[in-house]
Amino acid sequence: MKESIINNLITLREQSPLVQNITNYVVMNNTANALLALGASPIMAHAKQEVADMVNIVGSLVINIGTLDEFWVDSMMLAAKEASATNTPWVLDPVGAGATAYRNETITRLLAFRPTIIRGNASEIMAMAKVNIQSKGVDSRHGSDEALAYGKQLSEETGAVVCISGETDYIIEGKRVCAIHNGHSLMGKITGMGCSATAVVAAFAAIEKDFFQATVSGMTIMGLAGEIASIKAKGPGSMQVEIYDALFSIDKEMILKRAQISLLDE
Amino acid sequence: MKESIINNLITLREQSPLVQNITNYVVMNNTANALLALGASPIMAHAKQEVADMVNIVGSLVINIGTLDEFWVDSMMLAAKEASATNTPWVLDPVGAGATAYRNETITRLLAFRPTIIRGNASEIMAMAKVNIQSKGVDSRHGSDEALAYGKQLSEETGAVVCISGETDYIIEGKRVCAIHNGHSLMGKITGMGCSATAVVAAFAAIEKDFFQATVSGMTIMGLAGEIASIKAKGPGSMQVEIYDALFSIDKEMILKRAQISLLDE
Amino acid sequence: MKESIINNLITLREQSPLVQNITNYVVMNNTANALLALGASPIMAHAKQEVADMVNIVGSLVINIGTLDEFWVDSMMLAAKEASATNTPWVLDPVGAGATAYRNETITRLLAFRPTIIRGNASEIMAMAKVNIQSKGVDSRHGSDEALAYGKQLSEETGAVVCISGETDYIIEGKRVCAIHNGHSLMGKITGMGCSATAVVAAFAAIEKDFFQATVSGMTIMGLAGEIASIKAKGPGSMQVEIYDALFSIDKEMILKRAQISLLDE
Repeated sequence: MKESIINNLITLREQSPLVQNITNYVVMNNTANALLALGASPIMAHAKQEVADMVNIVGSLVINIGTLDEFWVDSMMLAAKEASATNTPWVLDPVGAGATAYRNETITRLLAFRPTIIRGNASEIMAMAKVNIQSKGVDSRHGSDEALAYGKQLSEETGAVVCISGETDYIIEGKRVCAIHNGHSLMGKITGMGCSATAVVAAFAAIEKDFFQATVSGMTIMGLAGEIASIKAKGPGSMQVEIYDALFSIDKEMILKRAQISLLDE
Repeated sequence: MKESIINNLITLREQSPLVQNITNYVVMNNTANALLALGASPIMAHAKQEVADMVNIVGSLVINIGTLDEFWVDSMMLAAKEASATNTPWVLDPVGAGATAYRNETITRLLAFRPTIIRGNASEIMAMAKVNIQSKGVDSRHGSDEALAYGKQLSEETGAVVCISGETDYIIEGKRVCAIHNGHSLMGKITGMGCSATAVVAAFAAIEKDFFQATVSGMTIMGLAGEIASIKAKGPGSMQVEIYDALFSIDKEMILKRAQISLLDE
Repeated sequence: MKESIINNLITLREQSPLVQNITNYVVMNNTANALLALGASPIMAHAKQEVADMVNIVGSLVINIGTLDEFWVDSMMLAAKEASATNTPWVLDPVGAGATAYRNETITRLLAFRPTIIRGNASEIMAMAKVNIQSKGVDSRHGSDEALAYGKQLSEETGAVVCISGETDYIIEGKRVCAIHNGHSLMGKITGMGCSATAVVAAFAAIEKDFFQATVSGMTIMGLAGEIASIKAKGPGSMQVEIYDALFSIDKEMILKRAQISLLDE
């Protein structure tokens, strides 16, 4: 498992895959910087006049509904459709799922284009699995353990790899389940950490065709980056800075020494 | 006064109120991070399909016109109307008031929904009080002392708590006036410090129903964060990082030791 | 040459010119912070109702097509037209030129309003000079040396000062060519460095009417800021922070000691 992550990281840095991001205004800068620090090449393009053209030159696509509106939803649909038609892996980040009817409807429409991977927090994954919860904004008031059964259901229903991020991250594809115990609580005090994780997962999906492994690789790297960053961080500001530095410097030794991954089923 | 700020900060961190932000593109990330570091929960949602739904689940609302356009103004109106109808406290940040006719017209339309609090720099507050000035973009070329009389007039006309930020911050509600002498000049070299202050004030307005006290609490905490940050900052870059760390770590002792607040009238 | 840069920096900090930015979502925050740290005053305003009003109060304008769409393109056209009509210097940043037909068409339309300065990476400049290349997103897969001849052609065709940024930055105006050998490779691992350079160049164009000199001044200052920042940076996160601090603190001595500028032709 660790060997696969190490190899994926090496490949990612060699190939520097293009990752297209149709994401929210709040985190665009974070997302681009996380991808660059990791070794990937971010593209942010959403105009309906070019969104499909871009899908055709990238290795993967992120669709994140954080600050959706009618114009952006149109672009998301065009991009998801093109990704689906061209077998370009794409990752759905259902920010705020469950908070409003509009978000839920948009998610339902996006699911028609069969996302390769879905990454959300426990509340979002539970809302997608039609649990009757009210999300508290973009925070999760539910633990990832609580959401595990719903994540399995969602993976079964959609065919997607499902990632529930939280204190423990769960990656689920059918009967395969992986738990990752890395990360740090200060990550919850910075905006866009989940969105950055989604983008990092997408970068791995551009170079690793086993999307379960790609997701495990991305989430492990993000968790490790947070953990390494926390050593020097004195608060959320320095934590953010250290995370970029860690994404840039993370290497084989850190993965071997620190990654805490366990397969739960197979 | 300091006891009230300390208690408000404790309550805010316990309750982690949801604060909805319809704000400008430049500062969305800063604003979300400032709220998270402080202990609140930011939501950024502007789609007209969900903006009113969101108002109904949050503790307070920020409307900041920094990068307004016709689509966003529609959303601002919907959100302000819903906040007014549901007695949800909302804070208006009139960025660039006086710079263009379009900004002035938008502000006039927003005032119809009776903002709970208005926070701006001296130029913006003077422009709102119909002083014939030309704002220099989002900077203020006027001192907060110069704007005090206009702030009083604006509070009287609108019924809102008015906050004029500057070297001295003034908070005005009818005959109550408070002056805060914290902060640091490097804050003027970072974008979005005023916008972050507005969001921090909104977070306090979600948990303190005396909105004058809420505004005093928010502005004191922002000023102190800047002051504490400046101790280690070597320029605007490190200043920004240190401010998030300071918002996260600020505590009772720092407030007691450093806050410089004076009531001018009562 | 160095004396001119030093004088321009002093003038810029004294006058703190307003620079209007119609730029992409990813870098708005960076751009505003780079301008503030340098000593200029950023404005971000794009509404078609006010974009021309703003052009009339600023010293220069940036148009950056990074996250263009039909609404923003309308605003860009209005702003470029007004800048052209009022002889306000404006800088075009053709992000992703060559990547999609939509970008190329937009650039062609903008060129009709005669940009004062065009700053791009090698791929973008080559694409604008009608070289048949496929840009890899916003990265350049071409060296600036390779693009020099195309930059000369583009300057001749458009009458603009053309800046090709890369390991060596080239500034071209007709027969005048300047090469700058400052900067650091970590700048390529942070989003928006090119966009920030464009804004910094625009700030100098607001106070220096020889636009070739203005561009040389801006690119030298950005390169030096990166170089100085790299001394303490441990990765892209700390690099970004240090760059703002460096833009704020850069002075005569650093320019005299470190700037590596050579005139190639005259």
